Amino acid sequence: MLAQLLQDDDIRLVAVRGGIGAVPGVRCAGVHAGIKPRKRDLALIVFDAPQVCASVITLNEIKAAPLLVSEDHLGRGGTMRAIVCNSGCANACTGERGDRDARATARQTGALLKIPATSIIVASTGVIGVPLPMDRVQRGVERAVEQLENGLKSSNDAAEAIMTTDRVPKLAAYEFYIGEKKYAVGGIAKGSGMIAPNMATMLAFVATNLPMPADALRAELREAADGTFNMISVDGCMSTNDACYAFAPAGEKKPPAAFSKALRQVCTDLALAMVADGEGATKTLTVHVTGAKDVAQARTIGRASINSNLVRTALYGEDPNWGRIIAAAGSVNAGLDPNSWSLLLNGKMWVEPGAIEVLSEAHRELELTDIIVELRLGLGEAHATAWGCDLSKDYVRINASYRT
Amino acid sequence: MLAQLLQDDDIRLVAVRGGIGAVPGVRCAGVHAGIKPRKRDLALIVFDAPQVCASVITLNEIKAAPLLVSEDHLGRGGTMRAIVCNSGCANACTGERGDRDARATARQTGALLKIPATSIIVASTGVIGVPLPMDRVQRGVERAVEQLENGLKSSNDAAEAIMTTDRVPKLAAYEFYIGEKKYAVGGIAKGSGMIAPNMATMLAFVATNLPMPADALRAELREAADGTFNMISVDGCMSTNDACYAFAPAGEKKPPAAFSKALRQVCTDLALAMVADGEGATKTLTVHVTGAKDVAQARTIGRASINSNLVRTALYGEDPNWGRIIAAAGSVNAGLDPNSWSLLLNGKMWVEPGAIEVLSEAHRELELTDIIVELRLGLGEAHATAWGCDLSKDYVRINASYRT
Repeated sequence: MLAQLLQDDDIRLVAVRGGIGAVPGVRCAGVHAGIKPRKRDLALIVFDAPQVCASVITLNEIKAAPLLVSEDHLGRGGTMRAIVCNSGCANACTGERGDRDARATARQTGALLKIPATSIIVASTGVIGVPLPMDRVQRGVERAVEQLENGLKSSNDAAEAIMTTDRVPKLAAYEFYIGEKKYAVGGIAKGSGMIAPNMATMLAFVATNLPMPADALRAELREAADGTFNMISVDGCMSTNDACYAFAPAGEKKPPAAFSKALRQVCTDLALAMVADGEGATKTLTVHVTGAKDVAQARTIGRASINSNLVRTALYGEDPNWGRIIAAAGSVNAGLDPNSWSLLLNGKMWVEPGAIEVLSEAHRELELTDIIVELRLGLGEAHATAWGCDLSKDYVRINASYRT
Repeated sequence: MLAQLLQDDDIRLVAVRGGIGAVPGVRCAGVHAGIKPRKRDLALIVFDAPQVCASVITLNEIKAAPLLVSEDHLGRGGTMRAIVCNSGCANACTGERGDRDARATARQTGALLKIPATSIIVASTGVIGVPLPMDRVQRGVERAVEQLENGLKSSNDAAEAIMTTDRVPKLAAYEFYIGEKKYAVGGIAKGSGMIAPNMATMLAFVATNLPMPADALRAELREAADGTFNMISVDGCMSTNDACYAFAPAGEKKPPAAFSKALRQVCTDLALAMVADGEGATKTLTVHVTGAKDVAQARTIGRASINSNLVRTALYGEDPNWGRIIAAAGSVNAGLDPNSWSLLLNGKMWVEPGAIEVLSEAHRELELTDIIVELRLGLGEAHATAWGCDLSKDYVRINASYRT
């Protein structure tokens, strides 16, 4: 897994197993509803106590029905009690029927759990333009309600049930301390293709048992997502169904830095798990942009590299074609100075403008699985990190005939 | 070749062979200088009379040395007499040496042709970050000067000499009439990868024997390039070396519509030749965006589809995944109305929002080589066309180990 520099080194986080199920008061299930052949395809996550909830959803103008229904529920200002999410069908571009089906899913789940339909977040992922098979969804929800449990096993089942082309379930959880008292932040996510930065990308559900006000949770999630989920890319394509939801018990006090750090770490782990599991990926690419005049510039230039098909195919071929990284950095017109940059590969000086000497062992360095590039802009003190993966023949194969 | 709707149907154009060499007063050569093994790699184009010249060059902040030297020559306000262009080496990110080498190429060419160095456009294409082998360039120029000729053969040699991953040379020429008098517009181009819209992409050299003022030629080229070269994409990647130069004898009168139409047609043919020859391409994709509120919206949405890796892999797999086209159209936030669009495939109604009925023979339609999609936005009267190609395993193979 890629390394992540963390500020606040005096705040201690303890990595724990169990993802969102590591958080006390969170019960999960992941079942096979029959939307997909054989595999788990319906996840249910239930909170014992009412939760405040923050969302970051896709900026795509085409938004799937469950996103709009969930935004409607959130907009009513009440607390939230559950998430129901299916894979195998995006319920996007399904017109009025899509809206009806998403609301019916919430209504049926609410009736079984004896909670209001409007306290439920609904989410879907899979093929666009196909209606939800509602009889199967209903049967899946019934089955899931019977299997709800706290802990690793059920959380892992839920993480599996939201997978599409993902090869592995994605879970992350950390414990942190406020004084003597121990709290947890945990999450699960899916995402492997149609993953692009600068927007809420993929599906992620994150929870904590630290009480806080809704607006504080929203600010914390926005900041964490901007530096993690919004800084990864698999293929530069923005989904219609992407959403990240964060939950916390309602409370009065703003969370301390320990929570911010734990949330950021959970989001980082989930984001990097998506990149490492990128469709067809054989290598990961971490691009540190340093010496930028501001964070926005660093982020724009970092994302340009991880989005470039030419950088990504060169990475796949272990071809030390550094010119493609510089061409990508210059293509976004973010204020790159053609005479002041330098490029490092896995910590070693690679090339500078006009230098005919380049790192001779660059080819060997690219044989590693996790490649780290640092692009020094020489313009200021700001920095940002973007994460991506290579573009392989397998990406083409997977996406030339995608069905579920 | 893809069809192109043309306004001004009363203006008659006659397609002729010979590319830029079809224009009277233009002599070409394309030779093997030894920059690449075996293949032609140096083109020389010489104008018998002094020319006004217009340029559209890459928006990349990293610009290759020959582009900057040519802009310097153009900025001096004199007329132009020749183009010298090599393939196999981009002379980009080569620092002061790159500038020196580009100027030396112009100087040596000028000395042999007995014209000022500052009347010569220099251009390069190939790998970034490698210095020009100047002894070979010099030898190539000497050889080219001896072979200069008007007509198809030498024009084809020049078009071959600027190829990199291109599989075929790209030439286009049309004759048009002003009263009884016949004129010609012809061009050659290269481009197969690192091709993205919304910028001057690739190398193209276009000439006419109709005299006109420099500012009129600039306006004509800008308009033609915006609707042609800037509306194609192979891989969404912007090059450091892209440039289009247009040449005409100096004159007083603004050109009539017949010239605009002929120039547009030459640029269209060359742009479509690039897309059809896109790296690894097995199919072309034409996206007509109609019913837009303005041309800018139509162009932005059209480009989004041809740039999407998911649309392009689906096209490769002949997978009728129309959701990816709509998701791409929505991702650029250009004002798509999620409820008013409709999509046609090869002229047949494919799908509308919420319609569960989709074109049943869509899969069969996608077996064709040239696919035409119309996206009706239902918002207004403006329209635009974008051209792209599919993303195949061969694109990955070609770019995983690109050397020349």
